[in-house]
Parts: sequence; C-alpha cells; structure tokens
Amino acid sequence: MMTKNADLAVLIRNIPDYPKPGIMFRDVSSLLLNADGYRMTIDRLAALVDPDTELVAGIEARGFIVASALAYVLGLGQLMLRKPGKLPGEKIGTDYTLEYGTDRIEMHIGQLKVGQKVLLVDDLIATGGTALAGVDLIRQGGGNVEQALFIVDLPDLGGANKLRAQNIRVGALIDFDGD
Amino acid sequence: MMTKNADLAVLIRNIPDYPKPGIMFRDVSSLLLNADGYRMTIDRLAALVDPDTELVAGIEARGFIVASALAYVLGLGQLMLRKPGKLPGEKIGTDYTLEYGTDRIEMHIGQLKVGQKVLLVDDLIATGGTALAGVDLIRQGGGNVEQALFIVDLPDLGGANKLRAQNIRVGALIDFDGD
Repeated sequence: MMTKNADLAVLIRNIPDYPKPGIMFRDVSSLLLNADGYRMTIDRLAALVDPDTELVAGIEARGFIVASALAYVLGLGQLMLRKPGKLPGEKIGTDYTLEYGTDRIEMHIGQLKVGQKVLLVDDLIATGGTALAGVDLIRQGGGNVEQALFIVDLPDLGGANKLRAQNIRVGALIDFDGD
Repeated sequence: MMTKNADLAVLIRNIPDYPKPGIMFRDVSSLLLNADGYRMTIDRLAALVDPDTELVAGIEARGFIVASALAYVLGLGQLMLRKPGKLPGEKIGTDYTLEYGTDRIEMHIGQLKVGQKVLLVDDLIATGGTALAGVDLIRQGGGNVEQALFIVDLPDLGGANKLRAQNIRVGALIDFDGD
C-alpha cells in the first residue's frame, strides 16, 4: 500500500477484524496522540481549504476534532452536525441509511446565513452515508457546500465519489485501499 | 449576572427549561459559530495551561472541540475519552452516576506514558460527574492529572469543587450562576 502523506499514514493504527471479521479498522486515535503528526495533519488539511470558505462544519464526534482545529487555524467559526437528541435549540435533521439500520444527524436552525460557504469535515470517509447526510442538511439549512475534507479516505468504499456526484470537491490526506 | 470574560459570555445562548423545566441550558454552539469569539476562547484557555502539560484529554463530544484546538495551539497531542462502544482497541473504562442513571467513559490502553502530565478539558462543568470519571480514568491509565479547564463553569452545581477535592486545579473562562 502506498499513499500520499505516508509519514502520517504510518501513525494510524490498523485494527484487523473490527467492527467485524474481514474489516480493517483505521484508528486515528494514535495519530491524534502524536503531537507532530497531529499538527502536520491540521496544517496539510488547512492548505487544501478553498480560500473563500466561511464556516467549518464537523460531524459528531471525531469530525469535531478536525473542524475545531481547522476553524481555529483558518480564523473561522464552526458548526456542529450532531447525533439525534443532542442539540438543545430548534433544529432540523436528516435521516440516512447505514449498513445496519438508519441514523440521523441534526443541526440548529438559524446558525447558517443563506448562501454561506461551508466546508464539511470528518476524520474518515468510507461509504459516505453520514457525509452525504451532512451535505443534505447544510444545504437544507441554506448553506453552500462545495468542498469536503477528511484525514482518511477509503476510496474502494465509494463515499468520496458519491460526494463528487453532489458537486462536492473531496480532499483527503491519506487513501487506504481495502485489504 | 457578572462574570469574567463577559465578552465571550454574551455569545453563549441561553435556552430556558432545557432539558427540563427550571433549567437554563448554556448552549456553546453560538460561541463556536462566532469566529472571533471562538479564537479568543481558545487563546484565553491556552493562556491558563500549565507550561509542563504533555497531553490534552477531551471528553466526548464537545470536549473534543476544546481539546483539539488547544492541543494544536500548544503543540501537543490529544487523547479521546469516549462514550462506551466507540473505541476499537483494547481499552479501560469508568462507570459513573448521572442524575438519571449511569454512564461510562472509556480510553484506549497504551496511549499514556506513566506519569505523563495530562490536561483534562470539556466545554462545561456542572455537577462534575463526567469530569471526575475522566480524572479517574486517566489516573487509572497511569497519567498525572493536575489541571482541568472548561469554557463554562456552573459553580452552584459543585463540579469544580469536587475536582479541587481531587487535587485538580480548575479553570474556566465563564461562570454562570444558577438562575
């Protein structure tokens, strides 16, 4: 396996047969723990961000990590896309299908300006169900999503291409093949 | 109500009667959304951090936001304290009591060095149940917790004092009285 940003890829722990036999789980916790690796991760992601981006939206929970540091570095605010039942204010939500059922993400209303350019981020994109729901939700709230960034892409699982079909430019630091 | 950092306090949305009648919910989502407010929040928290801190531990999920930006600014790594069932690797956990039952947080083993100085962070401290469990968990994993930082403290609920009784120095940017 060769990927760009191989110096960061080696900091990601591989956990075989998780969450089920035959799946190789890519665990970013080991990368986040590494001070230099973490700083380079954020700096390299920040270098990919469209300069007219106005807001960073992170998907709960590990997406908050990416969104928070990127928003700080870029001097922007951040929007939380949360699991159901977590947001105290008036909100909208989108249901989406998972391999084993359905899930939902929610967003406060009134926290996006119409047409505001929003960058969507998460730690990893696989089949893309949650990310697509995030795009749908931000657009439903009036935001303009044209770019999504991830630390890791699993391109064989097709999520990045599903986002591209929604006119989203997708960036990721690290590509892992299925294995 | 007067608090230090009143310029940040006004950016926090107050939601009355949430999650139940008589409770004023302090919603940091509006502060995070504000680019200047968010940057000042992180910078002022960073200024409170003990200089010999080696790692930042954030409590899922909003604690990840504070931990991520602080770790970046301080040039440190970050450790995730997660809800049950989220961590793929070998882990340890601590159960704790909530107003309406029990909960649990978990941490990967092998991600702390013995005696490593860990800063615990979250967005808000109220009764302190989760934060105390976080201290317990980090200490159980061999880490040394001497400081905890929060954006908001609700001092009337006593959580900060419970941490102090565990020899933790507690800092918060904003104090909200019960009302």
